[in-house]
Amino acid sequence: MDLKKLIRDIPDFPVEGVVFKDITTLIKDAEGFNEALQQFYDFAGDKGVTKVAGIESRGFIFGGALAAKLGVGFVPVRKKGKLPAETWSETYELEYGTDTIEIHKDAFEPGDKVLVHDDLLATGGTMKAACKLIEKSGAEIVQISVLINLTSLNGSDRLSGYDIKSVIEY
Amino acid sequence: MDLKKLIRDIPDFPVEGVVFKDITTLIKDAEGFNEALQQFYDFAGDKGVTKVAGIESRGFIFGGALAAKLGVGFVPVRKKGKLPAETWSETYELEYGTDTIEIHKDAFEPGDKVLVHDDLLATGGTMKAACKLIEKSGAEIVQISVLINLTSLNGSDRLSGYDIKSVIEY
Repeated sequence: MDLKKLIRDIPDFPVEGVVFKDITTLIKDAEGFNEALQQFYDFAGDKGVTKVAGIESRGFIFGGALAAKLGVGFVPVRKKGKLPAETWSETYELEYGTDTIEIHKDAFEPGDKVLVHDDLLATGGTMKAACKLIEKSGAEIVQISVLINLTSLNGSDRLSGYDIKSVIEY
Repeated sequence: MDLKKLIRDIPDFPVEGVVFKDITTLIKDAEGFNEALQQFYDFAGDKGVTKVAGIESRGFIFGGALAAKLGVGFVPVRKKGKLPAETWSETYELEYGTDTIEIHKDAFEPGDKVLVHDDLLATGGTMKAACKLIEKSGAEIVQISVLINLTSLNGSDRLSGYDIKSVIEY
């Protein structure tokens, strides 16, 4: 099954000149959704994952499903102000301006082996910030998995040293 | 297993006087996460679900996991402006002001049997709006499932006629 065919290109979203990769056409397709999830599961293989972290909010969809399939817990990495208990924050650069993401301080424990999931890897800024937050807890990141890797934006370079897996590459 | 024990009360979040039910302590717990998911799966039983809809953003976590477990596709119900293709919108009243949610016009087809999931049912405003959007597509809602039903807020009254299931009630 060619999963790439289930991704829809949306020109000029969210801003003019950007071609947005719409994953909703893949995830609403039972076969496509299940096959991508199976690939994530196979990637995780013998990594000994103890928790899956998913990045708000599209990263929650496969992230939650993957945690369930692996039989482990799920931790949301959220935008600033959304998590109700004590958090650690990390601010990172965007093309214009900055953004901040957070995790609960008690989300992970030393010894946790974490798989970090998001739908898309572009420049890697958000993913790098998520990894920093998770490692602050003393947990170890054993894999980063994304549905789509926009390889021309070199997100992988920023995340060297990590085991990065993707289902679809452009 | 008493799943209620895994829910954390956060006083005065997001505003003073509100006691927020924090589900992150349940979903990071492998056993708790899996048991709640199993209950959602059992609720869905013989309903013939063809798609799961999850409401942004906490509804994506169990929503994605449940779609995978049921072997069906997943559709996100999102806040205004987040979905890239053509959408239907529904605006609903909050205690102060209004909010708007959207779905892609091509997310569902007539004949789809939809399970709508969110983490929490309070007054039911968001859920009611989500149901309206989904029914606009000609799809049928066969179940509403939530992790937590705050029964004192009478959300179920607003959703009469629907099959509403919850794992935890307060």
